[in-house]
Amino acid sequence: MAVGKVDFPKMQVVSGIKLGTCCAGVKQTERDDVLLVEMAAESSCAAVFTQNAFCAAPVIIAREHLPQSPRYLLINSGNANAGTGEQGFTDAQASCLATAKLMSVQTEQVLPFSTGVIGEKLPVEKIIHSLPQAKSALSEDNWSNASQAIMTTDTFAKGYSMVTQIDGHAVTITGMSKGAGMIQPNMATMLGFIATDANIAPALLQQCLSVAVEQSFNRITVDGDTSTNDACVLMASGQSSLPEILIDTDAFAIFQHAILDACKQLAELIIRDGEGATKLIKIKVQQAESEAEAVQIAKTIAHSPLVKTAFFASDPNWGRILAAVGRAGVEQLDVNKINIYLDDVCIVEKGGRAVAYTEEAGQAIMNQEEITVTVVLGRGQLEQQVLTCDFSYDYVRINAEYRT
Amino acid sequence: MAVGKVDFPKMQVVSGIKLGTCCAGVKQTERDDVLLVEMAAESSCAAVFTQNAFCAAPVIIAREHLPQSPRYLLINSGNANAGTGEQGFTDAQASCLATAKLMSVQTEQVLPFSTGVIGEKLPVEKIIHSLPQAKSALSEDNWSNASQAIMTTDTFAKGYSMVTQIDGHAVTITGMSKGAGMIQPNMATMLGFIATDANIAPALLQQCLSVAVEQSFNRITVDGDTSTNDACVLMASGQSSLPEILIDTDAFAIFQHAILDACKQLAELIIRDGEGATKLIKIKVQQAESEAEAVQIAKTIAHSPLVKTAFFASDPNWGRILAAVGRAGVEQLDVNKINIYLDDVCIVEKGGRAVAYTEEAGQAIMNQEEITVTVVLGRGQLEQQVLTCDFSYDYVRINAEYRT
Repeated sequence: MAVGKVDFPKMQVVSGIKLGTCCAGVKQTERDDVLLVEMAAESSCAAVFTQNAFCAAPVIIAREHLPQSPRYLLINSGNANAGTGEQGFTDAQASCLATAKLMSVQTEQVLPFSTGVIGEKLPVEKIIHSLPQAKSALSEDNWSNASQAIMTTDTFAKGYSMVTQIDGHAVTITGMSKGAGMIQPNMATMLGFIATDANIAPALLQQCLSVAVEQSFNRITVDGDTSTNDACVLMASGQSSLPEILIDTDAFAIFQHAILDACKQLAELIIRDGEGATKLIKIKVQQAESEAEAVQIAKTIAHSPLVKTAFFASDPNWGRILAAVGRAGVEQLDVNKINIYLDDVCIVEKGGRAVAYTEEAGQAIMNQEEITVTVVLGRGQLEQQVLTCDFSYDYVRINAEYRT
Repeated sequence: MAVGKVDFPKMQVVSGIKLGTCCAGVKQTERDDVLLVEMAAESSCAAVFTQNAFCAAPVIIAREHLPQSPRYLLINSGNANAGTGEQGFTDAQASCLATAKLMSVQTEQVLPFSTGVIGEKLPVEKIIHSLPQAKSALSEDNWSNASQAIMTTDTFAKGYSMVTQIDGHAVTITGMSKGAGMIQPNMATMLGFIATDANIAPALLQQCLSVAVEQSFNRITVDGDTSTNDACVLMASGQSSLPEILIDTDAFAIFQHAILDACKQLAELIIRDGEGATKLIKIKVQQAESEAEAVQIAKTIAHSPLVKTAFFASDPNWGRILAAVGRAGVEQLDVNKINIYLDDVCIVEKGGRAVAYTEEAGQAIMNQEEITVTVVLGRGQLEQQVLTCDFSYDYVRINAEYRT
């Protein structure tokens, strides 16, 4: 169940990017679970992948194939092809080979992605068998079906679409994500696919994506567990009327900003669909000496089970937030300079309970569905924020249910 | 409710260490909540304190007083005197001053300890008023009452007592702890007090305690939240017939080992009483390049909500353990060398599901109340272990209940 009201947007087509889905029966048999994405020739493609040392076979292969002018993404839900050893590589390679053969490109031009149960063999024959059907469904106007085909146990499809003006030319950015709805345990989690018709070289596109992901997907957390399959792809077909976007131009700055917006929005949707989530919590850390220490403190708060259960209970339990700040491992933190706010209510002043604070004022904020916690360190000028959700009975229920 | 059967041991008196309890009505009025501990003149005293930057007023004062030949510990439960600003210092100082006056010592010879609710003013007048009663109760044979007086919401009193032979002389070690039973949120958590009649200089005693705590209290975790008041004290009265224990002697090695045993046992009792715990989980990491990386991996597993909920559900979910190992941040981890065991059942072999593994075999281990997870890295010769418990509905319930 989503935190807040979430509408699936009208997905603008991106010229040069086609999507085709079909039902291969990887796990569920009732809905599409395979997605083939085609990029027009001369497209650029960038991607970032999980930093988990145990990354899945498709992640390793996609990372290897990325520099070789990708033309196709092959995505399946229902099975992560992770923890599957040599067999997993063989299966992922076979799916790339079959796609390449069908579409008359090189095997290295296909990037594979899998999401679903860990540790079970990928039913690669089923996927290969379904490819002609996915091919025949290829269409630029197929984002809605695509965003549903990549879902595992997400409770809603997650989309973003925006037309931006750059130097008087329309540039479209459309994307989708699937996330932290690990209702059946062992799901390997986050995938994001974003497309634009901008014309931009692969290296610059990669720089743009890396910056955007660092400030969006890398600033969300449900439970601190990084999955084996996390990946985010940015495709640029170059078919907009805008001339090539070059480094250090105003056009690049606007484009970078637009991609960051897309990533932030898609990341926020994942948190709104967090396992058992009842609240969306934004944690801002201000007046830090470095961005790194701001992130470190924000994540320590965001990962604290004591803080998260207090949010679930709508308990303005400032002692837990304060204790999390204190154990974040920031050197020479002067606790007597720290102020903490719930929305605009000051709860901690100079390291102690704020004089004017009342439980009633804190309670009123905590009863909301969306809450901003602001920690003001009084050390410097930098700030960062992290998005998270609360920790509920349903989180335990969802993750304690036996794998089915 | 304890995991496993826990008996309170016969607490051997430690010659030269007296304990007196009374009911000051700090929070509860029905049971003793103040404990005064007297060390004979010429005793040595060592202590370690929380590393949380937000440490409570009594922690800061106890740390300052420690080098000044302590004679008394003054401990109260029911209020942590944390997050209380200047007033907190004034109150903790006042309690030391009153104790010193009553017992005719210097204020600096009193170490204050508080555990309980964060952010509420310490009712120091009540504590001071109760001191004469605690004084008149001072007795060497009072460990059982003492271990109950320091409880907050622990579900059982935690004690340890052992008589060790060193060089043909009997040395007694008796101690108690209180822990992670934060049934009323905001409790500031772990306290340990251990006494021995050994004769040992303060600096060597401190070295002994620091080593022991690192391998015991610092190797347990319920939820990764370090409290503002954690402290562990080791007192040595010097009244055993054993001559002074000197550095680099066999006697010191035996003594160090005995203190480590005491700390490990008292730490394990805290985990057995972990909030909502239904299982005791020992995580061993072997064949590491360094002890630090072994601890890092063990703690990442121990803190993973996904791993902990799987244990609660008795689900042999090896994918989650593997994913936690992978995200622990150890450089150049070769996942293809890693084996993982549940007790003696191999579940992961060379980074993938073990060939001979069956769900039935894994399930049989997971149904137990006490489980050992062994992660074999194949990188080096070092190993470390961490104790933790599972994550249950009750953990959420306990921590989501509004502070009362």
